[in-house]
Amino acid sequence: MAVYTGNIAFSTSGEIEIRDITQDVSNIVKQSGLKDGIACVFVPGATGALTTIEYEEGLVADIKSALERLFPKGMDYKHELRWHDGNGHSHIRASMIGPSISVPFKDKRLILGTWQQIIFLELDNKDHNRDLIVQVVGE
Amino acid sequence: MAVYTGNIAFSTSGEIEIRDITQDVSNIVKQSGLKDGIACVFVPGATGALTTIEYEEGLVADIKSALERLFPKGMDYKHELRWHDGNGHSHIRASMIGPSISVPFKDKRLILGTWQQIIFLELDNKDHNRDLIVQVVGE
Amino acid sequence: MAVYTGNIAFSTSGEIEIRDITQDVSNIVKQSGLKDGIACVFVPGATGALTTIEYEEGLVADIKSALERLFPKGMDYKHELRWHDGNGHSHIRASMIGPSISVPFKDKRLILGTWQQIIFLELDNKDHNRDLIVQVVGE
Repeated sequence: MAVYTGNIAFSTSGEIEIRDITQDVSNIVKQSGLKDGIACVFVPGATGALTTIEYEEGLVADIKSALERLFPKGMDYKHELRWHDGNGHSHIRASMIGPSISVPFKDKRLILGTWQQIIFLELDNKDHNRDLIVQVVGE
Repeated sequence: MAVYTGNIAFSTSGEIEIRDITQDVSNIVKQSGLKDGIACVFVPGATGALTTIEYEEGLVADIKSALERLFPKGMDYKHELRWHDGNGHSHIRASMIGPSISVPFKDKRLILGTWQQIIFLELDNKDHNRDLIVQVVGE
Repeated sequence: MAVYTGNIAFSTSGEIEIRDITQDVSNIVKQSGLKDGIACVFVPGATGALTTIEYEEGLVADIKSALERLFPKGMDYKHELRWHDGNGHSHIRASMIGPSISVPFKDKRLILGTWQQIIFLELDNKDHNRDLIVQVVGE
């Protein structure tokens, strides 16, 4: 039984960028040398989020629309009144989707549906150098 | 310290079906032989989701209403324009709730509130043979 | 490799109370004696939830507004018709945000963004003695 820490580093340029990180997570599981366990992916930062989706152009657009509809950009955010950085909606969206996702693996392979990918959502309105953590726990 | 993989297989017939899987997860924890750890439940597939709720008829209806109100079926989903399978809303709902949940256990028992059950939500508009994964990690 | 169970106990007095529990989780990771792994925080109970946010007054108000806007208190909840405890909205909010969060740690320190805190949300309309579980798994 062991723990292996991998990371996925990349740059983003404003909202909403949705990135398929399935292959990156899969590679880290292989690098870990572990056979069975859990890969816990985590965003250090309060304006990014993680979930899974069928990664195709239509749904990528649909999830952006849903977020804009439910947590609109132009609202009267109290965060905005205090900090004036224009990203109140980014924070609330990130908190509602959540910063972590845990995916099981067996025989060194992530257990995912055929049409299911792990995605990172850049929800902030500014550029970021993101560095996601993949904590692999298993044996 | 060890990893034990269990699965929960069942058929569903269209949306929205909400299934209490607490007893199944609990049985898998017992089968694992582990005393303390984490049970990570995961849906392979992009149109199902997992969370907890007080599993009673009223709330089961309420969560369906909330999903229909926030992510309505009849909207102009881009996924629909490309694939014509009528389930754009299913995908977005699943991504927002999320495909995994981690529940701690101690002395071979899940640590849950008295009125808290683990549920699977079938959000797709078609039949499925679901096969949930329960990855048990502990000692 | 080992498992360590910590808990975070406190009282709440009605909705919506948002509590920064980062230091508590961090202390439990240190008490565990483990160097690298995952801290899985869990709410036993169906009317509380966990996520991360930049914990500042503005966003704490904004997340409350967002929850009231999306899952209003005064709606016709079926839970209310059956149980008359006035907290249908509390349950739905809790299920949508989710009862657990997993945060990786390395060299005995949680890996979080500089402006990212772990929060507990009391969503129920009544007082509670909460007892969150922190299941630490690692080596």
